[in-house]
Amino acid sequence: MKDQLMKMLEERKDEMIEIRRYLHEHPELSFHEEKTSLYIEEFYKGKDVEVQTNVGNGYGIIVTIKGGQPGKTIGLRADFDALPIVEETDVPFKSKNEGVMHACGHDGHTAYLLILADCLIQLKENIPGTIKIIHQHAEETPPGGAKSIVESGVLDDLDAVYGVHLFPTDPVGVVGYRSGHAMAGRTYFKLIIQGIGGHGSSPHLANDAIVAGAHFVTSVQTIISRRLDPFDVGVVTIGSFDGKGSFNVIKDSVTLEGDVRYMNSDTQEKIDKEVHRIAGGIETEFGVKCDLTYTSDYPPLYNDPEITAAVVASLESMNDPDIKDVIEFPMFSGSEDFSYYAEKFPGCFFYIGCKPKGVEKAYFNHNPKFDIDEDALLVAAKSVGQVVCSYYEIE
Amino acid sequence: MKDQLMKMLEERKDEMIEIRRYLHEHPELSFHEEKTSLYIEEFYKGKDVEVQTNVGNGYGIIVTIKGGQPGKTIGLRADFDALPIVEETDVPFKSKNEGVMHACGHDGHTAYLLILADCLIQLKENIPGTIKIIHQHAEETPPGGAKSIVESGVLDDLDAVYGVHLFPTDPVGVVGYRSGHAMAGRTYFKLIIQGIGGHGSSPHLANDAIVAGAHFVTSVQTIISRRLDPFDVGVVTIGSFDGKGSFNVIKDSVTLEGDVRYMNSDTQEKIDKEVHRIAGGIETEFGVKCDLTYTSDYPPLYNDPEITAAVVASLESMNDPDIKDVIEFPMFSGSEDFSYYAEKFPGCFFYIGCKPKGVEKAYFNHNPKFDIDEDALLVAAKSVGQVVCSYYEIE
Amino acid sequence: MKDQLMKMLEERKDEMIEIRRYLHEHPELSFHEEKTSLYIEEFYKGKDVEVQTNVGNGYGIIVTIKGGQPGKTIGLRADFDALPIVEETDVPFKSKNEGVMHACGHDGHTAYLLILADCLIQLKENIPGTIKIIHQHAEETPPGGAKSIVESGVLDDLDAVYGVHLFPTDPVGVVGYRSGHAMAGRTYFKLIIQGIGGHGSSPHLANDAIVAGAHFVTSVQTIISRRLDPFDVGVVTIGSFDGKGSFNVIKDSVTLEGDVRYMNSDTQEKIDKEVHRIAGGIETEFGVKCDLTYTSDYPPLYNDPEITAAVVASLESMNDPDIKDVIEFPMFSGSEDFSYYAEKFPGCFFYIGCKPKGVEKAYFNHNPKFDIDEDALLVAAKSVGQVVCSYYEIE
Amino acid sequence: MKDQLMKMLEERKDEMIEIRRYLHEHPELSFHEEKTSLYIEEFYKGKDVEVQTNVGNGYGIIVTIKGGQPGKTIGLRADFDALPIVEETDVPFKSKNEGVMHACGHDGHTAYLLILADCLIQLKENIPGTIKIIHQHAEETPPGGAKSIVESGVLDDLDAVYGVHLFPTDPVGVVGYRSGHAMAGRTYFKLIIQGIGGHGSSPHLANDAIVAGAHFVTSVQTIISRRLDPFDVGVVTIGSFDGKGSFNVIKDSVTLEGDVRYMNSDTQEKIDKEVHRIAGGIETEFGVKCDLTYTSDYPPLYNDPEITAAVVASLESMNDPDIKDVIEFPMFSGSEDFSYYAEKFPGCFFYIGCKPKGVEKAYFNHNPKFDIDEDALLVAAKSVGQVVCSYYEIE
Repeated sequence: MKDQLMKMLEERKDEMIEIRRYLHEHPELSFHEEKTSLYIEEFYKGKDVEVQTNVGNGYGIIVTIKGGQPGKTIGLRADFDALPIVEETDVPFKSKNEGVMHACGHDGHTAYLLILADCLIQLKENIPGTIKIIHQHAEETPPGGAKSIVESGVLDDLDAVYGVHLFPTDPVGVVGYRSGHAMAGRTYFKLIIQGIGGHGSSPHLANDAIVAGAHFVTSVQTIISRRLDPFDVGVVTIGSFDGKGSFNVIKDSVTLEGDVRYMNSDTQEKIDKEVHRIAGGIETEFGVKCDLTYTSDYPPLYNDPEITAAVVASLESMNDPDIKDVIEFPMFSGSEDFSYYAEKFPGCFFYIGCKPKGVEKAYFNHNPKFDIDEDALLVAAKSVGQVVCSYYEIE
Repeated sequence: MKDQLMKMLEERKDEMIEIRRYLHEHPELSFHEEKTSLYIEEFYKGKDVEVQTNVGNGYGIIVTIKGGQPGKTIGLRADFDALPIVEETDVPFKSKNEGVMHACGHDGHTAYLLILADCLIQLKENIPGTIKIIHQHAEETPPGGAKSIVESGVLDDLDAVYGVHLFPTDPVGVVGYRSGHAMAGRTYFKLIIQGIGGHGSSPHLANDAIVAGAHFVTSVQTIISRRLDPFDVGVVTIGSFDGKGSFNVIKDSVTLEGDVRYMNSDTQEKIDKEVHRIAGGIETEFGVKCDLTYTSDYPPLYNDPEITAAVVASLESMNDPDIKDVIEFPMFSGSEDFSYYAEKFPGCFFYIGCKPKGVEKAYFNHNPKFDIDEDALLVAAKSVGQVVCSYYEIE
Repeated sequence: MKDQLMKMLEERKDEMIEIRRYLHEHPELSFHEEKTSLYIEEFYKGKDVEVQTNVGNGYGIIVTIKGGQPGKTIGLRADFDALPIVEETDVPFKSKNEGVMHACGHDGHTAYLLILADCLIQLKENIPGTIKIIHQHAEETPPGGAKSIVESGVLDDLDAVYGVHLFPTDPVGVVGYRSGHAMAGRTYFKLIIQGIGGHGSSPHLANDAIVAGAHFVTSVQTIISRRLDPFDVGVVTIGSFDGKGSFNVIKDSVTLEGDVRYMNSDTQEKIDKEVHRIAGGIETEFGVKCDLTYTSDYPPLYNDPEITAAVVASLESMNDPDIKDVIEFPMFSGSEDFSYYAEKFPGCFFYIGCKPKGVEKAYFNHNPKFDIDEDALLVAAKSVGQVVCSYYEIE
Repeated sequence: MKDQLMKMLEERKDEMIEIRRYLHEHPELSFHEEKTSLYIEEFYKGKDVEVQTNVGNGYGIIVTIKGGQPGKTIGLRADFDALPIVEETDVPFKSKNEGVMHACGHDGHTAYLLILADCLIQLKENIPGTIKIIHQHAEETPPGGAKSIVESGVLDDLDAVYGVHLFPTDPVGVVGYRSGHAMAGRTYFKLIIQGIGGHGSSPHLANDAIVAGAHFVTSVQTIISRRLDPFDVGVVTIGSFDGKGSFNVIKDSVTLEGDVRYMNSDTQEKIDKEVHRIAGGIETEFGVKCDLTYTSDYPPLYNDPEITAAVVASLESMNDPDIKDVIEFPMFSGSEDFSYYAEKFPGCFFYIGCKPKGVEKAYFNHNPKFDIDEDALLVAAKSVGQVVCSYYEIE
């Protein structure tokens, strides 16, 4: 069946591209992907599968493909939301939804998976198990869609889960992987420091929130420099220090907002504890009130080593000219809510090179000029198809 | 003549109040006091004096009263601009110019001085010298009016200069003074720190302007704590730290604005030098670009000790029930552009208690509920009248 | 009697100098002034006074001179301890006690007061009250002698107290005074910050006490820069940061020692509270243990304004060629345990110029080359004698 | 030949232990290993090899074993210096050189390599190439012996180089490896900050070096937190802050000493640049003089990936009950001057488990109670023997 699948995918390559271009032209923001989800629902109309819509906290869709024989259940996930970015490319299928853009390749993820799903439906009699196609909404905006889909229970029977991401760092044909910790977890925090305002000439009658805030900023640096294992990875960025006021009035209050990154939950917990500790210390030290909101978004992405090893072995064993190279990628400080699936089920999230031809250095994801080589869609479809076949030991 | 002057002032007390109320009802912002200046000009119409208008960088008016005999020349100054404050009092003559308010008593200053000037004009044959009445615009807003009036040269022949300020800290009848350094000088500064923006997860590709700004704030504290003589007076307030941004984007640039106070020019120079030094250090230390604007507004007010001693002796010798107490005031961290006159000519700027009756603690100047006991106007007029007589040794 | 007293003092000027030279040659450290106190005791042998020895926590001596009539009781104080300094002068009566030196003029204080006391004893029938001569030990070393003498109760009946200090800032003939707050209070503190040591390459397994200490130092600066009224006087110096260790071992503990100065007890309390607050904040912020010892030594010296005004009036009224000038001195950041007397009794501590002749700038007190013009002793004796006569209204 | 070699090593296991105990009993400090080097020289007496002594900047010894046929040249290195530590074990062969101890296992390194070398000498006819035995002095003390041996040129013909280290983290039978960057590079720095001393009450007359030092410490934290790639490894520890002084004297000068760690030369250069930059900034910011000494010791250890892969494959292919497990080790923040060899020649430095039996957690290297399970010596000898055979493709 595997050869048949690969052949079917090759024949439907143009269709993948067509779908991708349609989606690219009609992007929708996270949690507002109404038309995109209807498009996907429409695609499955009349096919012999169960389709669940409005799964989780948005427009999530789960398509269940029951194979010819009972067996294990796996999930294949693609996200379909876009970003609040004004597209700056010249492609003929440029966004028609001004200010919204598929600048992260989710259009491609969805396009390849729809075609792959359709092929698998046609071949399902040969599949000894169940495949759940996860069309996920809202990957870009916390709390994201993945968490709620996992919590909804519709995936509780998964034995493994897979997903891919298009990255223009490498040319078409390259498939990247990283076993274990692969992408960063992320926490947002907001600290409101409340002092007492007053006239600039009378500091003793006030309590300067800017000075307290500055000391918070300098103290926070020690979390990374002195609290973390040097071999661990962590970042604490204070991206916003809102203390605008009149030059001659002592500021009563400042609001700081920050972003924390880490590759594992130990680091996450350590930084969490230290930020709270420092806020508490500043409170005492400067007699201010510190109101700290600390919200973890996506956990670090952990690719199951066994599952990942199987993916790598499977891909390396392909004798397919479209799959040119399978390489290890470094850890990546970006975040991805696939991590919620991978936290609950053994999973592997891997990378599909999509660098446009003839380009020295491609615009990265989230850039207004982000573009892909559409040949990558077939690579994605074949790779995931191959992984599915290997999982079920289908020749 | 002195007794006659005092009697005339008493008789015209109601007129002072009337003028003050009219001005209070029609306040105008600094550098926009067109109608107020016309009102003053009108007042002197037909009187035997020289009136110069549009003196300095605004609506300043100089009225020259030539005495019966030649002699020394003195200046008497009152300011007439108002503040951008929405009045919150219930007085019947509340501001009709919404958002503008005589919340600093300049209406009273002008009212008493007009009447005093008129009386002196009537008595001028007895005066062995020349009196210049300085109706000054724009005291509230740097660069102020005083500096330009001084620079215009119209006062170059002054031998002494006097002014008063209404303060509601003390009841009517109290006249306050402070010899030597009496009110603070003031400097405004703005520091733009230019780093390099970037993604919150990749500090090594950016240069965090918030961190550099925080270090500037902590370093600046050492100017007051380690650079000044403990017996000197200085304040450096950073009233604005504008570093608002996205929580997960490293800030490329922050803008700090601050206010410096000092009681003498040595301290002024020392702080100036140190702020520049620290900005330069931060530039090197963090590899950022520091763009520092440093503008001194008003110099410290220095009351000539001899002139002030004469004022105090003169006031203390009055046997007038309206002048109940002459007391030394502490140094005051507020600023006043009378300091420009006092920098060039021996001068004395003293204080007239105006606390409303029956009030425990009055609203201070610049408060939207600021109010005065109008009996203070007569105290101001008599005090300055007395000082003038003493100066010319007129009995 | 006053003229008589002055004449007697003039006649005994050489004796004062002789005594001063003897004491200078035989200096003793604070709390070890055994021979000096015996010398003083010996001086009063056979005189018609009550002598109490070993008063307070050391060799303090109180000599009570009962006047011819009952009346008020006043105290005259001179200290007699020396300093642990190797004398570097060339005077013929150089210290014979190597490493100990009368480098603060206490030899002169005691010399003039012995002679003045003797004269007063001789004239006591004319005195309508009681004079207590306070020969105080241990002024130089906290907790000092004054506090314990006051606490002993022997002075409980004082109505006023006086003392003088020799200062070489001004020439002989100048008497200086300062009403109100005149000399600084002083606090010593020690902060032990206990972290956790560890290998320099593994900060996460340690808790770096040097980093916590550095943040304490930077935070402490804000006490002076942001907590004090700019018109108040305060200093916090961290004079010792003992964090010496191996370069590649994370320091487990550092010890900081500091010195605090202030001119009034409000400032004292504010700084006390803030240093404790910051130590507490650092404890939380860095997870270290902060052990803070905070010991106030001498309170600020407060000269009673009424008593001081009387002293000034009295001295200014003298028609004595030896008393050339009576001038106001600035506040002084040095400390003096006369403040304990002045805290309990209305008092005045004033200054006697003693600058050596022909010297541009004299070595200040505590310098190994400190020296005085001995003519100052007579000025001290006459000034204090004059003050005593004025107090009792003796002509 | 391989089986023969292994058998020979097994038979001489007791001899290895004997040698190790002898060396343990007679430890010598870095650069003072005179007797140790004589002992080694003696060992090779009469054997058919070339022995070079006093190689490099100390007692280094190079033993050249020429094989039966020409071919590639490899180096095998063991270090032989001890540490200035007072031994606290109870072993019967405890150090007889009080205060000096083989607490890092170099006795074991040398013992196994002597025996292995002797066996290889006996079997040399079978070796198609040349083996250089590197007995290295002074690994523990910068600048170390390795750098000078490499610079001497005696190894210029090496095609590969190998070394091992005993670590008690794992039991006997475990062999650890790490491809690529494996151990940290190290830099020592010393910063003397020169301000101006003064009396604690007069900060304006001084320039407080402790305050400047504290700001240096807080600024330095930003190197790790903001300058490094979060996936990079770096540590900056200020282990010594020598600012001890009198509590009431403003400190004129402080001396800071620190330790820097990094896993690659890019990080090394970045930190180097930043420490200098910050020192320069502090100089300007506080008007102090910063005298910075910055000395790199050992570079990071980089194990050639190809050579390491070959080592791993070779060890994993052994069917020897003594070699129980071959596992990947994490990067290690300790430093090792084997890095100088590996910088110039493709090399692999790997780890030999030596945890004493029956111990839950062993004392780590450099601990006064450090001890090894001597069975590890045979593991070391066999592992390196195996690697040599694989290199030359000897069966």
